[in-house]
Amino acid sequence: MALKIYKKELDYSYSLGTFPTIELLSTRPEQCRTVLLAGGIGNPEGIVRIKQLCEANHINIDIADKLISKIAIKDKTQVVGVFRKYGSKLLPNQDHIVLVNPSAPGNVGTIIRSAVGFGVDNLAIIKPAVDIFDPKVIRSSMGAVFKINFEYYDSLEAYRKNFSNNTIYPFTLNGRNKLMDTNFETPASLIFGNEGEGLAKFFDVYATSVRIEHNKGIDSLNLASATSIALYRLYNQRQI
Amino acid sequence: MALKIYKKELDYSYSLGTFPTIELLSTRPEQCRTVLLAGGIGNPEGIVRIKQLCEANHINIDIADKLISKIAIKDKTQVVGVFRKYGSKLLPNQDHIVLVNPSAPGNVGTIIRSAVGFGVDNLAIIKPAVDIFDPKVIRSSMGAVFKINFEYYDSLEAYRKNFSNNTIYPFTLNGRNKLMDTNFETPASLIFGNEGEGLAKFFDVYATSVRIEHNKGIDSLNLASATSIALYRLYNQRQI
Repeated sequence: MALKIYKKELDYSYSLGTFPTIELLSTRPEQCRTVLLAGGIGNPEGIVRIKQLCEANHINIDIADKLISKIAIKDKTQVVGVFRKYGSKLLPNQDHIVLVNPSAPGNVGTIIRSAVGFGVDNLAIIKPAVDIFDPKVIRSSMGAVFKINFEYYDSLEAYRKNFSNNTIYPFTLNGRNKLMDTNFETPASLIFGNEGEGLAKFFDVYATSVRIEHNKGIDSLNLASATSIALYRLYNQRQI
Repeated sequence: MALKIYKKELDYSYSLGTFPTIELLSTRPEQCRTVLLAGGIGNPEGIVRIKQLCEANHINIDIADKLISKIAIKDKTQVVGVFRKYGSKLLPNQDHIVLVNPSAPGNVGTIIRSAVGFGVDNLAIIKPAVDIFDPKVIRSSMGAVFKINFEYYDSLEAYRKNFSNNTIYPFTLNGRNKLMDTNFETPASLIFGNEGEGLAKFFDVYATSVRIEHNKGIDSLNLASATSIALYRLYNQRQI
């Protein structure tokens, strides 16, 4: 199998590192084609787990240092999972995260990690946007990406048409309601703009627009920080 | 002036990008040695502001495409501020963030951005740790790094000896108190372990240890996400 340096056009991608690869093998074993290990890696706990999961799922393991150094982003990578890309569908009547034109893979991965941790398993992405199967997304999600349902849409309107039952909460710097005072209806869609621009100004006037208050020492929060804070609030409301 | 690719040993560093450089010039003009601009950048709003700040502070501007491409991390960088490193002191009787052995520059910058936004202007860093003047820290802080007081310590004990007045809140996966139920004493020190390991197990038994509850879909939150959520809670308590 001639594995290539990742690009969006490929029909497969990579989980880089032990933990994301364990998540791949635990959650989507049927998508996994093979696992690559560095030579001389020994049998630390994580590798033992990977070997068990590969054996249980009849997945081949190759020792492949050269291939790993070609594929990996970081020098120290010792484990790579190779998996076929797959499609998925958002579930209706559940809480959703909606990212409008996100451009930084690290942010999207971190958001997915928080979303899964805070019980939101459905992610809509409005194009143009980061490729969710970019190895950087997978790595910064620590493999949580394998646990979510995701769908790409050409516009926010197209998304909303499919999920008109969800109350939308656009997050903007000048939103009408403080996050602290917001009681999220069920199901809710939490909507975030991209890293540079945020959402369009007209969302400010939405009755359900939300702001995360902070002082004037900064212009705005990092996108993944803002989203994680919102998800934390939602999670705590849903627990009660 | 022969500017070099950044390394820790240099006594100067770089703000990369328009916004971080505006923050440098607004907050620490006396540290700024020079500003480098790409040729043909024109006069968009941010550049006009930089030129005003440089003129007001008698700081030289050079057009220096080659130098920028040598120094910059990203291809698109068009603005670089060159500044002398400086020391600073934590203020007593104020809330602090304490990072134990943080290793990812992006995380530290993002945490600083949230800290400044949520009114915590004092950061203690326990070595070994990221270099706070790494251009990646400065960039991911969006220049908020210029607004904080910071100090390095060799151990958490050395830090605590200097600020025994602060109540410490170690954040661990199995902390005794839910964040939601925690009322932070004034002044408070919020303590976070590093990306891979978190804090040592013995912090779990501290009466004031805190956990940010999430479900079992993930092992842990991203460090910057966890810290931002904690800072958000602290900020909302301090507003009342």
